[in-house]
Amino acid sequence: MGLFHFEVIKECKKTRARLGKIHTPRGIINTPAFMPVGTQATVKTLTPDEVTALGADVILCNTYHLYLRPGTEIIEAAGGLHRFMNWKGPILTDSGGFQVFSLASLRKVSDQGVEFRSHLDGSLHFITPEKAIEIQEVLGSDIAMVFDECVPFPCSYGDALTAVERTTRWAKRCLRVHSRTDQVVFGIVQGSVYPELRARSALDLVNLDFAGYAIGGLSVGEPKPMMYGILDCTVPFLPERKPRYLMGVGTADCILEAVARGIDLFDCVLPTRIARNGTALTRWGKLVVRNAEYAADFSPIDPECSCYTCRNFTRAYLRHLFKAGEILGHRLLTIHNLHFTLNLMEKIRQAILEDRFLEFKSEFLNGFRITK
Amino acid sequence: MGLFHFEVIKECKKTRARLGKIHTPRGIINTPAFMPVGTQATVKTLTPDEVTALGADVILCNTYHLYLRPGTEIIEAAGGLHRFMNWKGPILTDSGGFQVFSLASLRKVSDQGVEFRSHLDGSLHFITPEKAIEIQEVLGSDIAMVFDECVPFPCSYGDALTAVERTTRWAKRCLRVHSRTDQVVFGIVQGSVYPELRARSALDLVNLDFAGYAIGGLSVGEPKPMMYGILDCTVPFLPERKPRYLMGVGTADCILEAVARGIDLFDCVLPTRIARNGTALTRWGKLVVRNAEYAADFSPIDPECSCYTCRNFTRAYLRHLFKAGEILGHRLLTIHNLHFTLNLMEKIRQAILEDRFLEFKSEFLNGFRITK
Repeated sequence: MGLFHFEVIKECKKTRARLGKIHTPRGIINTPAFMPVGTQATVKTLTPDEVTALGADVILCNTYHLYLRPGTEIIEAAGGLHRFMNWKGPILTDSGGFQVFSLASLRKVSDQGVEFRSHLDGSLHFITPEKAIEIQEVLGSDIAMVFDECVPFPCSYGDALTAVERTTRWAKRCLRVHSRTDQVVFGIVQGSVYPELRARSALDLVNLDFAGYAIGGLSVGEPKPMMYGILDCTVPFLPERKPRYLMGVGTADCILEAVARGIDLFDCVLPTRIARNGTALTRWGKLVVRNAEYAADFSPIDPECSCYTCRNFTRAYLRHLFKAGEILGHRLLTIHNLHFTLNLMEKIRQAILEDRFLEFKSEFLNGFRITK
Repeated sequence: MGLFHFEVIKECKKTRARLGKIHTPRGIINTPAFMPVGTQATVKTLTPDEVTALGADVILCNTYHLYLRPGTEIIEAAGGLHRFMNWKGPILTDSGGFQVFSLASLRKVSDQGVEFRSHLDGSLHFITPEKAIEIQEVLGSDIAMVFDECVPFPCSYGDALTAVERTTRWAKRCLRVHSRTDQVVFGIVQGSVYPELRARSALDLVNLDFAGYAIGGLSVGEPKPMMYGILDCTVPFLPERKPRYLMGVGTADCILEAVARGIDLFDCVLPTRIARNGTALTRWGKLVVRNAEYAADFSPIDPECSCYTCRNFTRAYLRHLFKAGEILGHRLLTIHNLHFTLNLMEKIRQAILEDRFLEFKSEFLNGFRITK
C-alpha cells in the first residue's frame, strides 16, 4: 500500500453500493463522498474552515480556470494549490477537458491536443494531454484526471467512437509523463450513451491500471434513466478495488441511484450555484426562498435541518437578504445546500454500514420531488 | 439607574478622552466604541456571530433602508429587528434623516416633515419626526435617534440656522411621542461649521435631556481640521455624564482625534465599503490588495495583524479572489477591516485605562499616512 489506496469497508448485499475510505497523503476521504467545487480556488463564498466544518473530506478545483487565472506560475510560487488557497485536505483537479470543450471557443481539436481561446480574454492556448498533467503536477492536487475528449449529447455513434479511441490514446500519454509520487491519476470512461463504447472505454483504461476511474460525459442532457442504464453497464467493467467517480452529478436522487450502482465519488456545482439565486435544497425538493410567499414566513428553510443557517435564520430573513442583494444570503444558502448534500452522503454511508441502504434510498426518494 | 445608563470609568488627564460603559438591556457597550454598519439588517458579508467575534458590542442599522425594505410590517411580525436578523447585542438605529436628505429624491421639506421618493422604486413617502420614532419603536433598537434636518457642506449661515431651529423643534416632537421604556433616544447636534450654531444646537438639546448626544453633519466634505475645530467647540456644551456620538466617522486618524476631543461612539461604512473593492485598512494607511504589485506577494496584508484573514491568507490569494470576482475576497477584507477598526478601539480603551492615550495616539499617527 502506497501513500494512496482505496479500502472497501462494507458492501451492500442488495445493490452495488459500498462503504469505503480513500487514503491520501492529506487525509482520508470517506466514500461515497461528495466533493464541493472550488472552481477558482475557493468554494464560492466559504472559507476552507467552513467547508471542512460542513463535513467535506475533499474538494474539486478546475485546472482550466486556474491555468488561465491566476496562472500556474503564481500557484507554483505559492508552493502549490493547497498552500495558495489554504485548504489542508485532499484536492481533486479535473484535467480541463470538460471546460475546454464546453466553455472555451474551440479552434482545433486534433490527436495532438486542443487549441482554444480563453473565455476570459480571448487569448489563444494549446492544451495537450502532457500539458494537462504538467499543469496538475504544478497545482499539486492529490488526485489528477486524464485529459479526455468530451462529446456533447446527443452524439453519433461514430463521433462517440472517435472520442473513446482518442481518450484512450490521450490517457496513455498522460500516464507516460506523470511523475509525482504524491499524486495519483484517474482515467475517464467516455462512450456517450452507447453501452458497447462504454464497455470498450472501460476495458481500455483498466488495462492501463489507473488509481481510480471516472465516468465522464453523463448528466449532459440525457434523460436520467438513460444515465442510470449507462452506469449499470459500465460499472461491471471497472475493478472492484478502485474508486469510481461519476463526474458532474450531485442531485440527491442521482446520487442515491448512482451509489446503488457502485459509484464512490461525486462532484457538482449545483448546490453552490443555485444558492446564488436563492434556491435551497431540501429533503422534499427545491425551495426558492426568494419567492414572495416566504416574505413573512418565520420558520427556517427546513425545521429538521441542523445546519447553521436553519438553526439561526428564517425564510423571511433569507428572502430579505436576496431581495436586498446582500451577500450573506448567498453564503447562508451555500452553507445550507452543502450541508444538505454532505449530510446526505453521511446518511448514505451510515445506511450502508447498517445494512439498510436500499430502505434508506426508497424512504428518501419517497418524500422527494424529482425534477426533470 | 434605569435599564440604560452611561458609566465613565476613567478620564484622560491630558485630553478629553474617557473610558466608559454604556449599559443597555442587551449588554454593555465599552466606549470609545465603533459600531459596524448593518444598513439592510446585515453587516455586509458577515454573520452576526462573526461580528460579535470581531469585538463589536453594538451595530448600527438604517431606519430608512429597513422602512423601505423589507418594511416595518415584516420586522414587526418577526418580533423586532434583533430577532429578524438574529443579532443579540444592542442596536442603534439612525432616524433616516441623513438618508432621506442624501439618498432619496426630496419632494418637499416643511416643518411638518419630509416628502421624498424612494431610491429603490420611486414610491412616495412622508416622514415626520413622529413617524421616524414610530418606525424605530417597531424596529425595537436599543438606541433610537431623533429625526434631524441634515444640511450639506458648504451651507450658508442662514440655512444652517434654519436647520438647527427645525432640528430642535423636531427633537421635541420625537421625545413627545417616544414611549418604549427599553429604548432610549439620542439628540443630534447640527449647525454645520458655525461654532455659535453648534453651541446653540447643543444647548437646545441638552435642555431636552436626552440619553445621549450625537454630533451630526460632520465628515460631509469639510476639511478634517475644520471638523476637529467644531468638536472642540461643541463637546464642552454637552453633559459629561452622557455618551457622545460622532456620526459617520470611522477612519483611524479621525477616531483618534475625536476620542481626544471627548467622543465615545462612532459609526462608518468605510471599513465594510472599501473591503468590496479590495482595499485594506492598515496601521500605515490603505493597501489596495487587488493591485498588480501583489500578484505574487505571499505575505499577509499585515504580518503583525492577528485577524483571521491575515493568519490564513496571502495578498496574492486575496488579489486572485478580487480579480476572479469571488465573494470570499470581499468577506476576508471585511473581516480584516472591521478587525482593524475594532482592534484600534480596544487599543484606545487600553491606552486610556493605562494613562497613555496621548502617547498611543502620537505613536499611531506617526506611522500612519493620512488621506485627505
